[in-house]
Amino acid sequence: MIKIVCVGKLKERHYSEACGEYLKRLGRHAKIEIVELKEQSDKDVNVAKRKEAFLIAGKLAGMRDYYKVSLDSRGRQLSSEEFSEILKKPNIAFIIGGPDGLAEEVLKQSDFVLSLSKMTLPHQLARVFLLEQIYRGFTIMKNEKYHK
Amino acid sequence: MIKIVCVGKLKERHYSEACGEYLKRLGRHAKIEIVELKEQSDKDVNVAKRKEAFLIAGKLAGMRDYYKVSLDSRGRQLSSEEFSEILKKPNIAFIIGGPDGLAEEVLKQSDFVLSLSKMTLPHQLARVFLLEQIYRGFTIMKNEKYHK
Repeated sequence: MIKIVCVGKLKERHYSEACGEYLKRLGRHAKIEIVELKEQSDKDVNVAKRKEAFLIAGKLAGMRDYYKVSLDSRGRQLSSEEFSEILKKPNIAFIIGGPDGLAEEVLKQSDFVLSLSKMTLPHQLARVFLLEQIYRGFTIMKNEKYHK
Repeated sequence: MIKIVCVGKLKERHYSEACGEYLKRLGRHAKIEIVELKEQSDKDVNVAKRKEAFLIAGKLAGMRDYYKVSLDSRGRQLSSEEFSEILKKPNIAFIIGGPDGLAEEVLKQSDFVLSLSKMTLPHQLARVFLLEQIYRGFTIMKNEKYHK
């Protein structure tokens, strides 16, 4: 089972359609679920991120046997081939922050902090990118042709 | 002037809409033009890539005063802030390959080989990613609020 725990909605239709396409393709490879948490607001962005960290911790509390992968640009980069190794784990939770990313404590409580790029990505695009890599990862693992 | 020289079309509507959105936002920052070259085919992928390299060279021949940036996962990664420095150049050509990337000779003839990620990206998503970073780069350069 793969769960994508994310803060905030996909506001742009093109990004939700892109995610929908990869979720459809992934259907035959894995059970996958998107868990959207409400974006929190505060005049201090760190307070908002800490509130979001509480919501995330609440969700993760029931997922003790999951391998937890947080997305952060300061994390470790993997090639698509290396990334596909992670997908061999039986239960994985990917955690994507909102527009301002994840609080430190979420990163600390993760098994792995993954960086998709040195560049700062909008969280909506990060979700598309991650789903594409999960789909690609399964084609690598199963030695299937990638549907371009 | 910024030209995005790319091999192959955007087949997925969500990706062309995402690009359209960033092109619209970029309108007030820069003159930007997408130059699409026809994807070549051959049973040997390297022959196809070499044919594409000829088409690219043909386009670049008329762009001698352009700073040429090719996209390849083996290139150099930059942070969004570092990338925004490139945008200060008066004329820039970004070159994105087709589904199988760019031939060696294109990379060798470039001023800079940029890697967006260690992961392999589909060329359609790379185009969205690049346009988003160009838009982000201008907001960094001009110290404007990023439209999330």
